[in-house]
Amino acid sequence: MGLFIGVDIGGTKVLAAEVSSDGEVLRVARRTTPGRRVQISLVEDALTEAVLEVADGRPIDGVGLAAAGFVDAAGERVMFAPHLPWRGDPTRSRLEARWGVPVALDNDANCAARAELELGAARGASDVLMITLGTGIGGAVVLGGTLLRGRNGMTGEFGHMQVVPDGLPCECGGAGCWEQYCSGNALVRFVRARLEAATFVGPSVVEELAGGDPAAVTGPMVTTAAQRGDELALAAFAAVGDWLGVGTANLVAALDPVCVVVGGGVSAAGDLLLRPARVALQRSLVGAAHRVVPEIVQASFGPEAGVVGAAAMARAAF
Amino acid sequence: MGLFIGVDIGGTKVLAAEVSSDGEVLRVARRTTPGRRVQISLVEDALTEAVLEVADGRPIDGVGLAAAGFVDAAGERVMFAPHLPWRGDPTRSRLEARWGVPVALDNDANCAARAELELGAARGASDVLMITLGTGIGGAVVLGGTLLRGRNGMTGEFGHMQVVPDGLPCECGGAGCWEQYCSGNALVRFVRARLEAATFVGPSVVEELAGGDPAAVTGPMVTTAAQRGDELALAAFAAVGDWLGVGTANLVAALDPVCVVVGGGVSAAGDLLLRPARVALQRSLVGAAHRVVPEIVQASFGPEAGVVGAAAMARAAF
Repeated sequence: MGLFIGVDIGGTKVLAAEVSSDGEVLRVARRTTPGRRVQISLVEDALTEAVLEVADGRPIDGVGLAAAGFVDAAGERVMFAPHLPWRGDPTRSRLEARWGVPVALDNDANCAARAELELGAARGASDVLMITLGTGIGGAVVLGGTLLRGRNGMTGEFGHMQVVPDGLPCECGGAGCWEQYCSGNALVRFVRARLEAATFVGPSVVEELAGGDPAAVTGPMVTTAAQRGDELALAAFAAVGDWLGVGTANLVAALDPVCVVVGGGVSAAGDLLLRPARVALQRSLVGAAHRVVPEIVQASFGPEAGVVGAAAMARAAF
Repeated sequence: MGLFIGVDIGGTKVLAAEVSSDGEVLRVARRTTPGRRVQISLVEDALTEAVLEVADGRPIDGVGLAAAGFVDAAGERVMFAPHLPWRGDPTRSRLEARWGVPVALDNDANCAARAELELGAARGASDVLMITLGTGIGGAVVLGGTLLRGRNGMTGEFGHMQVVPDGLPCECGGAGCWEQYCSGNALVRFVRARLEAATFVGPSVVEELAGGDPAAVTGPMVTTAAQRGDELALAAFAAVGDWLGVGTANLVAALDPVCVVVGGGVSAAGDLLLRPARVALQRSLVGAAHRVVPEIVQASFGPEAGVVGAAAMARAAF
């Protein structure tokens, strides 16, 4: 079957994995991302170590890279990434030369979409919106079975759709971007603000999990607390889920897809997130009574979607 | 070359036209749209009269219908139209049988996009967003040279993207829809509100054109006044143009197209509308410094875009 390795390069960590042709993760290696202000070679050293650890001396048939940033339409360069040092240099060909192995490059949301499309929740669907809720929002558009790239390779930047005029400031330089209201960060902000303002009195599971320190709350804590029925955590998912449905309605009005797949860390909460999103989609979508409203489904792959899709990309290319 | 007739069925009027293969309108006929609460046969009688008047006894090779409403993906039925009585009945085949002539059907924004793509401002472009500003907003998406239809034939309903939470109520049943802030109606509302509140003292061209009655202001009056340098009318175009840029940035973030064509009655104002839109797009678009920002161009066809595109559709089909 050949040895194909997917590598997901995020803002905080690097995950490399050997992936089988049916999407099973067989072996993984992890590194910490050195940061955005370091020399590029440090990041590429970390990737190299992770890839070599997974290969463990075996010959590699291809590597797929999923990068958390804007990748050009040709799949050659990371043009810009908020948490990585690459700025338009020829990443793909440089790593290919360094490793002596064929390398394919795409952004992480596109790789996650490929995993869902070929092996997961969107298998067999031709027109799909993929929405990835992590720290922010990633996205991908599949039409007629093809992943759209766009003029700049930047299709699917849904997170920076402005949904609130003069709203919360965003890392992109804008304000009121969707991902400020609908993301892991939004979930955490919702909970912290209410703990700090003591709006929720009485015992809160999420506060316990954070050791009583609102600043220590993380997204996974909110998910765990919600799964245990914590009122504050459930309210956070209701709010973020509602915004998920509203923004999804905007995208569905524009593109009229068959299905919407929601992935990323926040989607691990499943129906706690998706139920309010479905209600808001039905309420917000234009002409909902006169059309088939697309289903919002949970992605099949969790945190491994990026490596699975990246490996599948390499397998298809080489 | 054959006689191909395009018919544009709007909420207030029916326009039928003989159109040459290079998009020239050779002969027209007009009727008033009988309304949404009338018998379907009354609307179809009006269409028939207009088509027969244009044909003037000559044999017809094909008719293209551009309808202001949701047309199903197959191009057979008008599923829903706020100002027309059709509700999912087989319009296309019924008119084809009645006239004994091949008939093609699509929605008006798709027809306008076809006109721009084949014969106008978007000629030769493969990835285009078409935004039509009239009473509301119509839209179309062209990717890889193909007009997207979507699951329900409802691709391109950009006007009902929610851009203001709990914003102005919309005819669609929602609130805060883009077309409430960016359309001919929005232009008129802006001017009326300020005339009624007497915010603009001193002489106003638009007030003169409306005979001193704010309720009598129309979109074309605002355009005329702006072209004469009227401060209030220019402020209305600045506000609507800014919203045009903001909403366009949302769509460009999602789809990363090569160009954006703005048509419809409001676009007759040209740069008075498009200049503020370009500024807002550059300001609002994610990663503007790291990408090619698409050009916003004025449509080539004015009020005749629908009939030109509808005739071109019929010419291509038959």
